Amino acid sequence: MGNNSASLYNRYKDKLQRIADIKYAAAVLQWDQETYLPSKGNEARARQLATLNETAHQLFSEDEFGKLLDELSVADNLDTKQKRNVELTFEDYHKQKKYTGAFVRKMSETVSRSFYSWIDARKQNDFKIFEPALDELIQLKKQESDLLGYEDHSYNAHLKEYEKSTSVKQLDQLFENLQAPLKKLISEFSSKETNTDFLKRFYPKDQQWKWAMYLVKELGFDLEAGRQDISEHPFTTNFSARDVRITTRIDEHDFANMTWSCIHEVGHGLYEQGLPDEEYGLPSGEYASLSIHESQSRLWENCIGRGPHFWQFYFLKLQSFFPDQLHDVNLEQFLGAINKVQPSLIRTEADQLSYHFHVYVRYIIEKEIIGGNLKTTDIPARWNDLYEQFLGIKVPDDKKGCLQDVHWSHGSFGYFPTYSLGSLYAAQFWFQLQKDEPGVKEEIVNGNLYTVHQWLANSVYQHGRIYTSGDLCKRITGETLNTHFFTDYIADTYKHF
Amino acid sequence: MGNNSASLYNRYKDKLQRIADIKYAAAVLQWDQETYLPSKGNEARARQLATLNETAHQLFSEDEFGKLLDELSVADNLDTKQKRNVELTFEDYHKQKKYTGAFVRKMSETVSRSFYSWIDARKQNDFKIFEPALDELIQLKKQESDLLGYEDHSYNAHLKEYEKSTSVKQLDQLFENLQAPLKKLISEFSSKETNTDFLKRFYPKDQQWKWAMYLVKELGFDLEAGRQDISEHPFTTNFSARDVRITTRIDEHDFANMTWSCIHEVGHGLYEQGLPDEEYGLPSGEYASLSIHESQSRLWENCIGRGPHFWQFYFLKLQSFFPDQLHDVNLEQFLGAINKVQPSLIRTEADQLSYHFHVYVRYIIEKEIIGGNLKTTDIPARWNDLYEQFLGIKVPDDKKGCLQDVHWSHGSFGYFPTYSLGSLYAAQFWFQLQKDEPGVKEEIVNGNLYTVHQWLANSVYQHGRIYTSGDLCKRITGETLNTHFFTDYIADTYKHF
Repeated sequence: MGNNSASLYNRYKDKLQRIADIKYAAAVLQWDQETYLPSKGNEARARQLATLNETAHQLFSEDEFGKLLDELSVADNLDTKQKRNVELTFEDYHKQKKYTGAFVRKMSETVSRSFYSWIDARKQNDFKIFEPALDELIQLKKQESDLLGYEDHSYNAHLKEYEKSTSVKQLDQLFENLQAPLKKLISEFSSKETNTDFLKRFYPKDQQWKWAMYLVKELGFDLEAGRQDISEHPFTTNFSARDVRITTRIDEHDFANMTWSCIHEVGHGLYEQGLPDEEYGLPSGEYASLSIHESQSRLWENCIGRGPHFWQFYFLKLQSFFPDQLHDVNLEQFLGAINKVQPSLIRTEADQLSYHFHVYVRYIIEKEIIGGNLKTTDIPARWNDLYEQFLGIKVPDDKKGCLQDVHWSHGSFGYFPTYSLGSLYAAQFWFQLQKDEPGVKEEIVNGNLYTVHQWLANSVYQHGRIYTSGDLCKRITGETLNTHFFTDYIADTYKHF
Repeated sequence: MGNNSASLYNRYKDKLQRIADIKYAAAVLQWDQETYLPSKGNEARARQLATLNETAHQLFSEDEFGKLLDELSVADNLDTKQKRNVELTFEDYHKQKKYTGAFVRKMSETVSRSFYSWIDARKQNDFKIFEPALDELIQLKKQESDLLGYEDHSYNAHLKEYEKSTSVKQLDQLFENLQAPLKKLISEFSSKETNTDFLKRFYPKDQQWKWAMYLVKELGFDLEAGRQDISEHPFTTNFSARDVRITTRIDEHDFANMTWSCIHEVGHGLYEQGLPDEEYGLPSGEYASLSIHESQSRLWENCIGRGPHFWQFYFLKLQSFFPDQLHDVNLEQFLGAINKVQPSLIRTEADQLSYHFHVYVRYIIEKEIIGGNLKTTDIPARWNDLYEQFLGIKVPDDKKGCLQDVHWSHGSFGYFPTYSLGSLYAAQFWFQLQKDEPGVKEEIVNGNLYTVHQWLANSVYQHGRIYTSGDLCKRITGETLNTHFFTDYIADTYKHF
């Protein structure tokens, strides 16, 4: 590339990487906030995060940076990836320009307060404790809809934060289409008598932790380029492709709680570790979208992590970790239990079918909240009604109801739908992987995950944010998202159990 | 205060607190770097820290901030503390102005590289691994002497970073004065036959950790406003007065290693937790100097933590943690062993007398390094010679020699002398505490540390950085630092053992 273009691009890269430094620093402070922060440190941490977020925003929205991007957009001699990086950063720049520093600061402070109050509300199992902070956050989120702008529905402004290509219209349609086949499949499979009692035996914390660390390593997560810790709600964050932090939680009376959320987070973690490290701070070094991120976690959690091939190898290992709890259980019983279809209260523990109704409930509520049709105070009642309507179960209390997820406390309205989209992408990718690599299931049976890792690295990880979710899906599978892969996958999977 | 002064002061406060946010964020990243960071995360972490340090420097050295300080220095209606805050910040501002952003960034990056290389060199017990990175850092430190300016000796520029009121002249004199009495006391006490074998029995890691956590709580460290973790070299850092992190390390074959370094760090931690939280980011919310900081850690570690009164209460507790290791040891034997005078290799484990020779060796070497009279490559030989000269012992390898301390890898040249100064201040404060509170030893015998805490809070903690070390010492004890308190304290203490 020409000298001038090269020098412009280097200035652009340097700037973006400095912004990334500040953002990742904020991510370290947030990770610490959810893992190790002593309770009285809350207040100072909130202002430190606010200052970092405000600083990152300020750097990103400087007019001088806009000018640099202007020059770069007409620069010749940039290669395709560089051009695409500049194009994506320009979009980000225009979005940053819509915010004021004061708004960014206020949002950050409000999110921190809301998170602490969620922790407290969960401890005391009382939504009312969370309500004032959540309500303040919701008011701010509504202002954000107007700042960002939207078509058709104010919730669209937020949906696009997590998956640019989706909308209320698409999601209404999607959930509408999924409802009937899911209901049919659920009624078909949930009638089966399956014993799951042994999953509720006593699994000691220390031993579960050892199992979790074993699992993480076996799944290929690089512990020299990441860690696993304990937090209130499992999550993945990263401070570079070589420093990826996953967290989990342990319930001694529920084996499933930790294991599949651990596999889920490893799926996220592998994606982050697989992103091109040399593209640090650039769009080409970032994940494609949250839907694609969730496709990675759900593919590992479900397509692999609940599948018979994986456990043909790992069930014996598992038994050696928990001989007392699992000596009288065979592989078939185990697979039946971990795939039991049974509408239940907690999303992260849901079977793959009723899972989408958990998401649907949150989607409906978020749309109403942001659209102004639901008062914050009415969330628990609305939640409980919808759980009865779609999952047919009564919610006994707030902790098992609308306080179960951390997302709203983070202000992440619009995030949940990506779990459903991700599950659908996962099934579509899983089909393609088997088509491209016909021997892959056999390898998994032998405890060999090499081909899975390679295929995901080539198909997904290496591209960063260069392609939209739709384009990426088309590149990989030849077509955009198609729900029949998911329903086919379900029908195919459940015939085994 | 007048409206205008009030508004100016608020702007000043807001600015300083934002700078503090960035600095504390860097401290979080550093804490993480020394406790939990996966090894491959090093590189990105180094650049993140560099960007935060550069950002903090940039904010602090903005001309606009200088103008604000100008206006404030002539503002009427500020109270004494506010005036002093402005005065101290003005000094800090002028110092910041001496640096360029590029120099701050380079220093930060070089320190990170040097720290990683120290970790590696220690693991492999080979100074040569550390040498290139250390040498680069030393060259930068020499440039810094010139940037900062100095009188008499270039090392003075660095000494003043940790204790404004000290100098090569004062320290030469001080160590000169201490040498003869220390040597006399050492030869007197080290001839005693004292059994210390039981301190080298096997003390399992888990049990030591439980003991450490017990100790931390008992000493009054607030675990809702702080944490303890494990690191390569023990240290204390804080992200506000309500979030103070101490670390320790455990040697299963050396009971003393963890225990007194833990008490030492708690001493630091109590000081940080005791600083006025409402003065966050202002000089009045910061510690007075590193000498005063070390007076707090050394007072707890030695005057209290090696004293008979403390262990009259806690020895039984200790035995209940380690019955197998200590069932055949009585209090008198224990006190003798933990106060055994015996020149040894490791500073953090040294007795209170030979301790000063450890510091003296480092002081001599630092003076020579910064003054340009000692090549980096010659540090191990010089170290080993000086240990033979002053402590009369042969250094077997680099890990037990010049690689033992983290400080140089952080570029903290000028820090070590504050350990000696701190020990001297500690003795002087300890005498005054007993004079002001004649019943305090009796309280300690009963496991009651309330009066100690209150006295330190009133005498030291509450004042932040408002007084210089000398003025603070004079306020508390009626005179400035006087070494006779230390030699008296030693003579008084060791007559018991």
